[in-house]
Amino acid sequence: MKKKPITGMKDILPNEMEIRDYVIHLIKETYQTFGFYSMETPCVEHIENLTGKQGGENEKLIFKILKRGEKLNMDTANKEEDLVDSGLRYDLTVPLSRYYANHTNDLPAPFKALQIGNVWRADRPQKGRFRQFMQCDIDILGEPTFLAEIELILATTTLLGKLNFGDFVIRINDRKILKAMAAYSGFTEEDYDKVFIILDKMDKIGQDGVAGELEKEGFAKTTIETYLGLFQTINKEQQGLAFLKDTLSQVMDSQVIEDLQTIMQSVEAAKTAEFKIVFDPTLVRGMSYYTGSIFEIAVEEFGASVGGGGRYDEMIGKFTGQETPACGFSIGFERIIMLLLEKNFKVPIKGNKKAYLIEKNMPVEEMLNIIKQANEERSQGVQVMVAMMKKNKKFQKELLMSEGYQEIQEFFLQ
Amino acid sequence: MKKKPITGMKDILPNEMEIRDYVIHLIKETYQTFGFYSMETPCVEHIENLTGKQGGENEKLIFKILKRGEKLNMDTANKEEDLVDSGLRYDLTVPLSRYYANHTNDLPAPFKALQIGNVWRADRPQKGRFRQFMQCDIDILGEPTFLAEIELILATTTLLGKLNFGDFVIRINDRKILKAMAAYSGFTEEDYDKVFIILDKMDKIGQDGVAGELEKEGFAKTTIETYLGLFQTINKEQQGLAFLKDTLSQVMDSQVIEDLQTIMQSVEAAKTAEFKIVFDPTLVRGMSYYTGSIFEIAVEEFGASVGGGGRYDEMIGKFTGQETPACGFSIGFERIIMLLLEKNFKVPIKGNKKAYLIEKNMPVEEMLNIIKQANEERSQGVQVMVAMMKKNKKFQKELLMSEGYQEIQEFFLQ
Repeated sequence: MKKKPITGMKDILPNEMEIRDYVIHLIKETYQTFGFYSMETPCVEHIENLTGKQGGENEKLIFKILKRGEKLNMDTANKEEDLVDSGLRYDLTVPLSRYYANHTNDLPAPFKALQIGNVWRADRPQKGRFRQFMQCDIDILGEPTFLAEIELILATTTLLGKLNFGDFVIRINDRKILKAMAAYSGFTEEDYDKVFIILDKMDKIGQDGVAGELEKEGFAKTTIETYLGLFQTINKEQQGLAFLKDTLSQVMDSQVIEDLQTIMQSVEAAKTAEFKIVFDPTLVRGMSYYTGSIFEIAVEEFGASVGGGGRYDEMIGKFTGQETPACGFSIGFERIIMLLLEKNFKVPIKGNKKAYLIEKNMPVEEMLNIIKQANEERSQGVQVMVAMMKKNKKFQKELLMSEGYQEIQEFFLQ
Repeated sequence: MKKKPITGMKDILPNEMEIRDYVIHLIKETYQTFGFYSMETPCVEHIENLTGKQGGENEKLIFKILKRGEKLNMDTANKEEDLVDSGLRYDLTVPLSRYYANHTNDLPAPFKALQIGNVWRADRPQKGRFRQFMQCDIDILGEPTFLAEIELILATTTLLGKLNFGDFVIRINDRKILKAMAAYSGFTEEDYDKVFIILDKMDKIGQDGVAGELEKEGFAKTTIETYLGLFQTINKEQQGLAFLKDTLSQVMDSQVIEDLQTIMQSVEAAKTAEFKIVFDPTLVRGMSYYTGSIFEIAVEEFGASVGGGGRYDEMIGKFTGQETPACGFSIGFERIIMLLLEKNFKVPIKGNKKAYLIEKNMPVEEMLNIIKQANEERSQGVQVMVAMMKKNKKFQKELLMSEGYQEIQEFFLQ
């Protein structure tokens, strides 16, 4: 019998579970007020769906499940595909696409989906990273306008506000702006991926660093200068977006900028939490499936992103054969829990917590009354722990106090 | 791209999810008042732990996971064990034992555990039975007295009461009574399993049926007559347990009966839901690991058990090497959900549900105000769905009404 959990996965102790349960409930409650519907897919997915090139690097990290019964023939099996017909999902987006394709007619249009569930990736184990972890995604399928972005950002920021995250910033950009800035500067389409990977390091290596790496890749000096010049002007200008709208008018529909402005203005006007939403032309986000807006949550005190998302209008269509505009926002559930644990976050207690200690060999008649009393209090919402008195009562009471049972009632033999 | 979920598993649509979310929240809230702590283990477990003979028939139904990287060598693999190092858990009890062994020192004593989680069994697919399903277990580890049984039964019945289950019955028995009745009648210990499998059919085939099957197995006529005579007398007597206490005094410690009586009396005295608790000498429950009390919930309107449990004082010790009394109660989560769906159960609505419909091309300034208004209502707990007005507005409104949005507000261009 092995006592430790399997490599890279973890047992969750009661103190962490209390926070997780609280956050999950808050998520469901908050997102519900925005009209999102809970939905779920099986944790096990067809191997064909998991290896359809939508998952990028994650497809290398799949936990694969052995065929069963007659389907499994060890003698004739030469390669993994002969042994495997399914695997554990590595994200919630691929299953969402399958789900939507399977049930379109039974779902509202647009469909506002809330998914909370575990995903599995056989990543190299490292601190704070686990091979089973919870994801929490909201997606709006079938809404082509900026209304989707506004609703997603408002819902997510409302949640973070309720969790007392202060000082966070929503960084927003658009893939179309990213591309237009590159095109305007003289990069060609096949260079974009390379350029954006370098651009993504701006906050770490600065403008000079980016310039250096672009030069190393052999791009023309004038192209690089024009490109970085754009970022400098945006930084200087109060109205970076207005400047871009004029400058990029030849290579991009000005509607893109206008929509981004509408999103930012609407979020500013309607927000209930304390945060800033800022246009960040250096925001790239890795996933290649994004087609429009992209956004990320930066939390000052954490120094990293705790969530992000964007528009991916072409992905669902690839799965279903029917074009479906889509936009999603995923919060980094495990990071948020880690942060709350580090902050020594205390779940708001609803009622009292009481402990009843009963001396051994209590006669049945008196026992009945004690338990009855406990149960009446419980039905009023009080948390009552009933336990037999131990020999070392002092220690038992100390432990109960440390678990939050501040009120301890003792019942002795008469 | 395969649209259907994998064989035997299911996508969960929003209407069912709403009920599941509600029940899960109610479970956590209710069990918490009894002092149970939420805990979780990974869905993936060491294959050695899953195949340690604790799982009985379930061990044949394991979804096995392929080794990864260098550990997987297709060329030298001759049998399944060469390919597999882990699998999906088939219950929550084996992982609980591992968890308890791994964290004993960090857990309260006794430890009252609440686990809600998916388990997987590659059962033959059939109506209402799925290969991924949710289990919900409460267990008390480290409590040797009847207090464990009382707390488990009160917690479970309180939950069922809150879900408006009426007319249900807790059937209770004890493995020691089962064995003593068999011993008293003249069966030998190696016959017990055979006898109990037949006894278990009593409610289907009646006393004559049981007698017939016992005869077919070749048991002595007098033994069978004595055995069934016990059941007949228990049925006739008002005080079946008192009768057994006298009759079985030679083959069983009378404390067993007294404890059962204490459990029943305490539950009757303290119960907050409407139900009966009855001694049922024909209750067997299949799992061989039970060592003491066993119990089951029979729901009249369902005609089947929706949960059960019992004491298993020897199991944890087998895993951990340290004897630990244990008692658990598992509710049939999926059955309860199915029953609620059949009853057309409606989740109590907290606040209002409103829909805002916005005409296309609304100027940004007005858009801001509408969204702001929506968000203010949401922060009051109102559920507000904001959507763009569709061409077929009549149909759109009908759909929204059917989703429960009774109040629909329309915003037109001025």
